[in-house]
Amino acid sequence: MRESQSWTPFLDRLGDVATAAILPHFRTRLDVDNKEARGFDPVTVADRAAEEAIRAVIAAEHPDHGILGEEFAPVGLDAEHVWVVDPIDGTRAFISGLPVWGTLIGLKRHGKPLAGMMVQPFTGERFSGGPDGALYRGPGGPRTLATRPCASLADATLFTTTPHIFTPEEKTAYDRVERAARLARYGCDCYAYCMVAAGHVDVVVEAGLKAFDIVALIPVIEAAGGIVTTWDGGDPSEGGRILACGDRRVHAEAMRLLAG
Amino acid sequence: MRESQSWTPFLDRLGDVATAAILPHFRTRLDVDNKEARGFDPVTVADRAAEEAIRAVIAAEHPDHGILGEEFAPVGLDAEHVWVVDPIDGTRAFISGLPVWGTLIGLKRHGKPLAGMMVQPFTGERFSGGPDGALYRGPGGPRTLATRPCASLADATLFTTTPHIFTPEEKTAYDRVERAARLARYGCDCYAYCMVAAGHVDVVVEAGLKAFDIVALIPVIEAAGGIVTTWDGGDPSEGGRILACGDRRVHAEAMRLLAG
Repeated sequence: MRESQSWTPFLDRLGDVATAAILPHFRTRLDVDNKEARGFDPVTVADRAAEEAIRAVIAAEHPDHGILGEEFAPVGLDAEHVWVVDPIDGTRAFISGLPVWGTLIGLKRHGKPLAGMMVQPFTGERFSGGPDGALYRGPGGPRTLATRPCASLADATLFTTTPHIFTPEEKTAYDRVERAARLARYGCDCYAYCMVAAGHVDVVVEAGLKAFDIVALIPVIEAAGGIVTTWDGGDPSEGGRILACGDRRVHAEAMRLLAG
Repeated sequence: MRESQSWTPFLDRLGDVATAAILPHFRTRLDVDNKEARGFDPVTVADRAAEEAIRAVIAAEHPDHGILGEEFAPVGLDAEHVWVVDPIDGTRAFISGLPVWGTLIGLKRHGKPLAGMMVQPFTGERFSGGPDGALYRGPGGPRTLATRPCASLADATLFTTTPHIFTPEEKTAYDRVERAARLARYGCDCYAYCMVAAGHVDVVVEAGLKAFDIVALIPVIEAAGGIVTTWDGGDPSEGGRILACGDRRVHAEAMRLLAG
């Protein structure tokens, strides 16, 4: 496969099998496992079923590709192409019945995010990005994704999933950004990043992310004209402290405030 | 009209005109007015257009009814029937592109909430309640709304729109509930109350609400088997500090913690 070729059709196939695996379990009353003893990190039947379905399609069509997923052991991480998958990003929103979770499917080539998609099975929305551009499909029809201009935090809408994700030191840094922003809102996990790509939100600041929480979203935001880095401007593709912005000017200002 | 008669068909008509007025403005780039100097309280073109459309249908069909809305002056508040309308509850979610805002349409008779509906135009969901029961319509088809059992906060999922809605004293009280809850999440305005009615969320604690933020939701939650009061167990229909629960046991526990 040439890398100028679109990965969107294959991402759509993966999105289709994830949707089929997850949607029957949304808003049913599942038993929720407790993955971590000290926190509340629900893992549902749907989460595992979707990742198994995604892995099966990748293994059948691209057996030379590696896979890093949230639910099962990684395979082939030294391959040229590695898929990075979070079947349900926003499991807390999922178990609360809210439509702001999503299936994240990303593709890295030589360690660099190349293409990705966020699939929202309940609303039927898909946000994708890669060498062929940034695309939205949903109830209102397809359109190109494009971030909006935002010169400074004084004009910015800021999102973070919850202030509880931050360590005390991180919270102090985050609070400097929140105080400077025009509007700050909590909630939404991957959905907030997609709203950056769509030009409705300007800044997302988070911490403690895993690679599978962010890899799929990087090509979406970048192809839409935005920027994703760690808080100090580094490579975001391993997760950690993430700053995603629609405009480089507000990204620079947020980076300064996060640095103190 | 006999009060045993269903208000759902008329609520649906109001929901239809609200949807037609609002949806073309969702995820467009509107100029956002600033209604209050000290806060960020966006009022969109859609908000006003929807309330005008709703008022026109009520005035034409039920000219003897009163109307209390967010955007325009009240009329006929001493009438036997008074409609209480918030065209876009969750304007901050709306302007951020998120699908967790809603149109709230409630009907009071002799001052008491009788019937109500939350309409989510983007997802096509409707949550209604009244003398004829509690009903969900949406992408997965229609079903009866029913709250879920929840014996204590240790088992409960708790929502509040944002901790910033509370005064310092209220925040102290809220924090006692949050610490006791199994899972606490922020965001979602009216959508969280509908998730209580649907049995996915157990508790919503908020403060500073207006009548039009809550009247429509009271019949939905009550007809689904839940309970809505002020923090001290009083009449919630004027807004203020609101506690909405799916189960009376967790309601009693939350009320104790809110009282200190």
